[in-house]
Amino acid sequence: MQKGALCYEGKAKKLYTTDDPQLLWVAYKDEATAFNGEKHAILQGKARLNNEISSMIFTTLAEKGCPSHFVRKLSATEQLVKRVTIIPLEVIVRNKVAGSLAHRLGLKEGMQLAEPLVEFCYKDDSLGDPLVTEDHIAILAAASQAEVARMKEQALRVNELLSSLFARLGVILVDFKLEFGKTETGALLLADEISPDTCRLWDEKTGARLDKDLFRHELGNLQEGYEEILARLSTSSS
Amino acid sequence: MQKGALCYEGKAKKLYTTDDPQLLWVAYKDEATAFNGEKHAILQGKARLNNEISSMIFTTLAEKGCPSHFVRKLSATEQLVKRVTIIPLEVIVRNKVAGSLAHRLGLKEGMQLAEPLVEFCYKDDSLGDPLVTEDHIAILAAASQAEVARMKEQALRVNELLSSLFARLGVILVDFKLEFGKTETGALLLADEISPDTCRLWDEKTGARLDKDLFRHELGNLQEGYEEILARLSTSSS
Repeated sequence: MQKGALCYEGKAKKLYTTDDPQLLWVAYKDEATAFNGEKHAILQGKARLNNEISSMIFTTLAEKGCPSHFVRKLSATEQLVKRVTIIPLEVIVRNKVAGSLAHRLGLKEGMQLAEPLVEFCYKDDSLGDPLVTEDHIAILAAASQAEVARMKEQALRVNELLSSLFARLGVILVDFKLEFGKTETGALLLADEISPDTCRLWDEKTGARLDKDLFRHELGNLQEGYEEILARLSTSSS
Repeated sequence: MQKGALCYEGKAKKLYTTDDPQLLWVAYKDEATAFNGEKHAILQGKARLNNEISSMIFTTLAEKGCPSHFVRKLSATEQLVKRVTIIPLEVIVRNKVAGSLAHRLGLKEGMQLAEPLVEFCYKDDSLGDPLVTEDHIAILAAASQAEVARMKEQALRVNELLSSLFARLGVILVDFKLEFGKTETGALLLADEISPDTCRLWDEKTGARLDKDLFRHELGNLQEGYEEILARLSTSSS
């Protein structure tokens, strides 16, 4: 597999073409951003941690019948993925109240939701990724009604699988963000990454944050939290 | 009918009890506020204009089979209404893109929507009346699923009636906000007011704003715009 030209650079990853037009080479970055890019830092080791964790989670999901764009790990900080066109929606699943849900609606952080909540946000940095309803998604032509239903269904399935996985590791999956893409043939595929950058993960016993809130709210060392998640995931899969 | 004690004061209206516990006395105020109270002014004559317009619109809706809390006009600036417990949701119906929809989603003001859009916002000034999905409404216990469906249905019916009414007067009903309340017996009832404070009304020929955007964005004299709406409504009902 040959690494080609840079075709996309996001806040936490760079994407390169490969000699196979259907595959992309992902290089994770040692960068952390928060609050729509307002807060930014270089955090040594973050690329490796997110690449390892995301690879493990996508592998586990595939084993449980939830495929994604993930093909295989290429190095400590790189992975190979299927090329998809990203649907401009963030699909958020919440089990407990935290973050923007707490702020927007004045709800208490940590409140258990009676059932998992799925939210969609329109991926547009200049607009601050606004919350959208299914009607807004139709107006924006961001996805079809069938795609929205399918993303919701898949997101809830991922939630079931990851909630169980993390519960076995003594970690509460508070919420997480997924992105989906479409393959050349129009098939919907789970994409982007699943890592402590995109999940809220709380230690079941201590309530300690083991995710990007460590960086967002300066609650502790980000790498130590992510290292803890990686260590627990490694135990479970070994 | 005796006017009793002040029981509620909002930004644009005062509510008083009456000798009938099921009825409230509404006194409109000569006040305009915008941007969640950040902008504020006393505008002579606004109370009369909104009371007259809201009374005419509620009367027309009732004649067309859409009842509301409105009972009758009491004076130039006052009206009698049924007492309801307000549901803490703003129900917004949009025919064209304007205001927060344009800003939040980066859509062009004036864009015609393929079909009317219904949005719900959670009535909480301290939170800035955030947009909510039906799932959020359930979490907030702001209304039942059946009530949400009924409000949506009634809001779309009001939209049909008012869009036709205004079209006959050479006015485009761009969008509007409704509030609903529950009577003592639990019945859902259209409440609050329907006026140029709560509707976006554009002159069909000139595009001139005839609503609160005159005040919000300093586009002209608010009273002149509202007077124009009242004059056209009066012609139609005479």
